[in-house]
Amino acid sequence: MTKPGITAVRPMDVLRQSIDKSVMVEVKGRRVYSGVLEGYDIYMNLVIKNAGEIINSESKGIYQRVLVRGDNVIYISPSTGD
Amino acid sequence: MTKPGITAVRPMDVLRQSIDKSVMVEVKGRRVYSGVLEGYDIYMNLVIKNAGEIINSESKGIYQRVLVRGDNVIYISPSTGD
Amino acid sequence: MTKPGITAVRPMDVLRQSIDKSVMVEVKGRRVYSGVLEGYDIYMNLVIKNAGEIINSESKGIYQRVLVRGDNVIYISPSTGD
Amino acid sequence: MTKPGITAVRPMDVLRQSIDKSVMVEVKGRRVYSGVLEGYDIYMNLVIKNAGEIINSESKGIYQRVLVRGDNVIYISPSTGD
Amino acid sequence: MTKPGITAVRPMDVLRQSIDKSVMVEVKGRRVYSGVLEGYDIYMNLVIKNAGEIINSESKGIYQRVLVRGDNVIYISPSTGD
Amino acid sequence: MTKPGITAVRPMDVLRQSIDKSVMVEVKGRRVYSGVLEGYDIYMNLVIKNAGEIINSESKGIYQRVLVRGDNVIYISPSTGD
Amino acid sequence: MTKPGITAVRPMDVLRQSIDKSVMVEVKGRRVYSGVLEGYDIYMNLVIKNAGEIINSESKGIYQRVLVRGDNVIYISPSTGD
Repeated sequence: MTKPGITAVRPMDVLRQSIDKSVMVEVKGRRVYSGVLEGYDIYMNLVIKNAGEIINSESKGIYQRVLVRGDNVIYISPSTGD
Repeated sequence: MTKPGITAVRPMDVLRQSIDKSVMVEVKGRRVYSGVLEGYDIYMNLVIKNAGEIINSESKGIYQRVLVRGDNVIYISPSTGD
Repeated sequence: MTKPGITAVRPMDVLRQSIDKSVMVEVKGRRVYSGVLEGYDIYMNLVIKNAGEIINSESKGIYQRVLVRGDNVIYISPSTGD
Repeated sequence: MTKPGITAVRPMDVLRQSIDKSVMVEVKGRRVYSGVLEGYDIYMNLVIKNAGEIINSESKGIYQRVLVRGDNVIYISPSTGD
Repeated sequence: MTKPGITAVRPMDVLRQSIDKSVMVEVKGRRVYSGVLEGYDIYMNLVIKNAGEIINSESKGIYQRVLVRGDNVIYISPSTGD
Repeated sequence: MTKPGITAVRPMDVLRQSIDKSVMVEVKGRRVYSGVLEGYDIYMNLVIKNAGEIINSESKGIYQRVLVRGDNVIYISPSTGD
Repeated sequence: MTKPGITAVRPMDVLRQSIDKSVMVEVKGRRVYSGVLEGYDIYMNLVIKNAGEIINSESKGIYQRVLVRGDNVIYISPSTGD
């Protein structure tokens, strides 16, 4: 799917490489969950550990584990220096 | 789907492991249902027992059993220490 | 799909067991229909008999029979003591 | 799909039985179309004859024939005593 | 799909019969396009000729030809006496 | 799909005939892109060259090339006299 | 799919040709991500490197890498002179 000589990073690769690492996930409704990615599936359903929840820039607490439905995901960003 | 040596937690595993345990489920429209997960299917339709309903942080009562349509689910979180 | 020794309640079971019983159904737009469930299909399209319609907590009348499109359903709750 | 001894009414049965009869159809955006059901398909696209259109409880006129896209349908109710 | 003796009008028949005739099409966002139906497909994508565009009851001009995406269609009504 | 003697214009024909011609495309959120259609696919994803962007009737600049996701398209209109 | 003599640019070609180049991506909710396209898939999920995030025309910071879900994409524009 890419030009010869170019190695594209597939979206699912980003998820796979982020397992057991910190991620920030924004979902619809100005919500952000940041924690350690424990798992995912092809629908981008995500399992996040020690997930801090931020709504409208306000911290709302921490979930030991949360399963976020992929439908609502806007973006996922691996945390830097993890 | 994961790197060797890493055991990812699949989203459906989280549901399966939560059967007969307490969960908190947020659905669109600032609604939260918390109760005991009785069942689910691959669409994330959920059956919850003794489900307390909270809308806009206000308690609205308890349903003996409620079937929540998966489409509307934002996240599911297993309760801690259950 | 469940752990040995645990009997999960499948979402479609809840519908099947509610046939000819009272249910409360909330659909998008703060609408509630409560009546006797006459039928359903795998899309969660529902047929409800003697369905009282409540919009924004205000009673709007009764339909002898109403076919509610599954797409709009938020939850279905079997009535207690029916 | 139903318990022995119970005859469920399938959603598509309701449409089939309503052919050439009066129906009331509510679609998203507080619109109601009431007229005679001429036809339908599995997507719940509906053909309605002599369809009165009501928007926000205000009558907007009559269409000799209107094809309503199923996507937008909230409910369909057969009219009583027809 | 219909009872014996009843001839239902299938939604796609309405489109087929409206080719080269005047139609009024309402799409989401209070837009109406009225013109001559030139074509359609099974997704209800519509090709309309000499299409007058009305937004919020205000005329916005005429398109020589417009392809309206079916997703957004609320209803299609063949014009009377055409 | 059409009556004998009637030649319907299929929606995809309109796109095919518009290649290398000027088009006006409206997408959700009161955005209009007008430029030269370079390509499309069956999802109505569109590639537009020298695309002027207008949001809420205000010009926002020109993109040398833009790929518009089909999901958001409301209508596509070939420009007249091109 | 095109007329003889016309070479259409397929939407996926635009993505393929943009690998390792600068792109600007607008997603729903008035968000723009601009950075280097690292990868994509057929759902238009996008991997962007050094992605600056702009919400409502206000810069919100830079992500070393971000995976944007295709569902929310409005348009993708390759940057000029890259």
